[in-house]
Amino acid sequence: MSGPLAGLRVLDVTSTIVGPAATLILGEQGADVIKVEPPEGDVMRRLGGRPREPGMAPKFLHFNRNKRSIALDLKSPEGAAAMRRLAERADVFVSNMRPRALEKLGLSWKDLSALNPRMVHCTIVGFLSGGPYEGAPAYDTIIQGVSGVAGAHAELFGAPRFAPFVLADHVTGITAAQAICAALVARERSGQGEAIEVPMFETMAGFVLMQHLDQRTFEPNGHMGDPRIMTPDARPLKTRDGYICVSANTDIQARSFFDAIGRPELKQDPRFATVASRIVHVDEYFRLRAEAMTARSTAEWVEVLRKHDVPSMPCHSLQSLLEDPQLRGSGVLVNEEADGEEETMLGLRHASRYGGSGIAPSRQAPRLNEHGEEILAELGYSEEERTRLLGRKRETAA
Amino acid sequence: MSGPLAGLRVLDVTSTIVGPAATLILGEQGADVIKVEPPEGDVMRRLGGRPREPGMAPKFLHFNRNKRSIALDLKSPEGAAAMRRLAERADVFVSNMRPRALEKLGLSWKDLSALNPRMVHCTIVGFLSGGPYEGAPAYDTIIQGVSGVAGAHAELFGAPRFAPFVLADHVTGITAAQAICAALVARERSGQGEAIEVPMFETMAGFVLMQHLDQRTFEPNGHMGDPRIMTPDARPLKTRDGYICVSANTDIQARSFFDAIGRPELKQDPRFATVASRIVHVDEYFRLRAEAMTARSTAEWVEVLRKHDVPSMPCHSLQSLLEDPQLRGSGVLVNEEADGEEETMLGLRHASRYGGSGIAPSRQAPRLNEHGEEILAELGYSEEERTRLLGRKRETAA
Repeated sequence: MSGPLAGLRVLDVTSTIVGPAATLILGEQGADVIKVEPPEGDVMRRLGGRPREPGMAPKFLHFNRNKRSIALDLKSPEGAAAMRRLAERADVFVSNMRPRALEKLGLSWKDLSALNPRMVHCTIVGFLSGGPYEGAPAYDTIIQGVSGVAGAHAELFGAPRFAPFVLADHVTGITAAQAICAALVARERSGQGEAIEVPMFETMAGFVLMQHLDQRTFEPNGHMGDPRIMTPDARPLKTRDGYICVSANTDIQARSFFDAIGRPELKQDPRFATVASRIVHVDEYFRLRAEAMTARSTAEWVEVLRKHDVPSMPCHSLQSLLEDPQLRGSGVLVNEEADGEEETMLGLRHASRYGGSGIAPSRQAPRLNEHGEEILAELGYSEEERTRLLGRKRETAA
Repeated sequence: MSGPLAGLRVLDVTSTIVGPAATLILGEQGADVIKVEPPEGDVMRRLGGRPREPGMAPKFLHFNRNKRSIALDLKSPEGAAAMRRLAERADVFVSNMRPRALEKLGLSWKDLSALNPRMVHCTIVGFLSGGPYEGAPAYDTIIQGVSGVAGAHAELFGAPRFAPFVLADHVTGITAAQAICAALVARERSGQGEAIEVPMFETMAGFVLMQHLDQRTFEPNGHMGDPRIMTPDARPLKTRDGYICVSANTDIQARSFFDAIGRPELKQDPRFATVASRIVHVDEYFRLRAEAMTARSTAEWVEVLRKHDVPSMPCHSLQSLLEDPQLRGSGVLVNEEADGEEETMLGLRHASRYGGSGIAPSRQAPRLNEHGEEILAELGYSEEERTRLLGRKRETAA
């Protein structure tokens, strides 16, 4: 019960969010993720919010659980040699460096497959190779802009905006973890590794367009943007003391909803009688729902709607989410002891459940080079060699 | 070269978006995805926007490529029997029915593992079992509300709003495809299938909180919401003719940016000299950038900024995204012949590249029960049996 990927080794040369979001999942699923950091550490150690101790920013902590850290200067001959020894034993190699930088470091698929042809070599790129943007720098907001994420917001908010998330990084990271496991499935059967390329731009453009091509699928001048999503009144509804989300989409739910709000006469209203007619009159339907909800508190409405079999849930703020009984009960949000300290901190856990494999025991994010010594020992480096290789690192990290 | 999952069979009893988003990826990666639909078809055939032909709504088309369709009434003895024969030969079973409904149909892990213990049995649920919300109905907007997605929007937009995407469905779908492949990796080594549970709520709450716990990680009254994301001026910048996204986060990029906009004196301004000082003065820094961009067109700025090594990209509308040369060049967005018709339509393709496995040849989304005959034949049903089982289906579907 230590996770479906227990026994697999992931060589993780990623930084920021997109790569760490991918390897986080692999580590939670039991893979031994070896995070190879430059001597100064992943940039998110400093940019991920104000830390409690240097180099341990909160966003870094949450995206780097269940990983071991070794700091290596890949431009030095000794660092490069250690990297090659790691690559010989790795099942997966993941990087979000630009391909040219990987080549310079001798870490391309061509280089590493010569050492280890069974390796799955995943490069997370901004843009697929071969196109006009190949090799262009990619940051989350730039990808949100060019992939249509910000443009979808324009349909709803009147001007292009970014999602309130590093959305492109995070979604592409999950996508990369999926692609890696698919390639591992292939490898288990063929015995062969392969190079895979996971692009942020094309992944997110596909994400946006699957949802919003709409009539443009068929007609050169067809409407774009899912009308059910782009309706301004499709939003959480204000109650007396907060917000609620209500979903009354089927005919039965719509009729029950009219009963719940004390407007049974609307059950006979042809505007709201069928799915098709409610789509035509969606603005009126949504406005009517919004007006009704202001009469009671969120908790009262959740209770009333539950009795009428109308799906609803409280709409949480970031703050109230932390008190949600399902979230606390699930074990996905936990109080944990800060590593080596008595103060507690909030930690997150993998959300999915694996009945046979279980998930890996949770480990907090590593300090920079925390596992350098043990990782080099596993590679067969002598004590003298380890001291030589890590001595400099220790100083740099201090 | 037919995809990393070629040779695997996926029994897909999903509907709406969350499940089809998962099995779409598996099909693109080469798995034989058998979409088992009720006699009236997946509800998205009708709710996914105005179709060109009945039952083929655009959103349905884009989430159901590379699948085969069979219509079975799982409540009838013959339909249930056919389902069991399918389950005997499936590597993966995926459903987004509520667990109680699955049990009633005899499709729980307990039922199916008795027939096929090597099966990976994935149930996509709203809420993890065992918690107070277990079994509660889950729709995308309800999950966006209760998981903090809408609450994150409140930090940026002043009131809770939904993302302009079926975000919870789509992200959980990708997450489910990842979890399934991880369990397949485990199975290739153990020989054992397992039941996995992928929850929408906990998946999305984790997604939100990893990014936004911020100081609340450490302090009971600590600030939540990543300040770099929640800054109102962190948005696409208006140019003379559109919008542009600019990322000038490192010191070198910031200085180059000041040169590019003809304000070299700002390179000496202590407010903008370091990452740390720009975070303190982030509002002024972002406002300064926004003001500068109005002077030229998007294309002019992209060219000027490229010469100064400052990352930037045009910010696309949904419409202009379709003309993007990288997207067209990548083959992720294509003109394809509408199945059996001369008119063309726009189609999407898998974004990632697999150097060894390739991806599966693309197949358009199936008509309802399009492959019923061939699937039953593969199961060994005689012509007479097929006619009996599908005859009724054909009528119902017509």
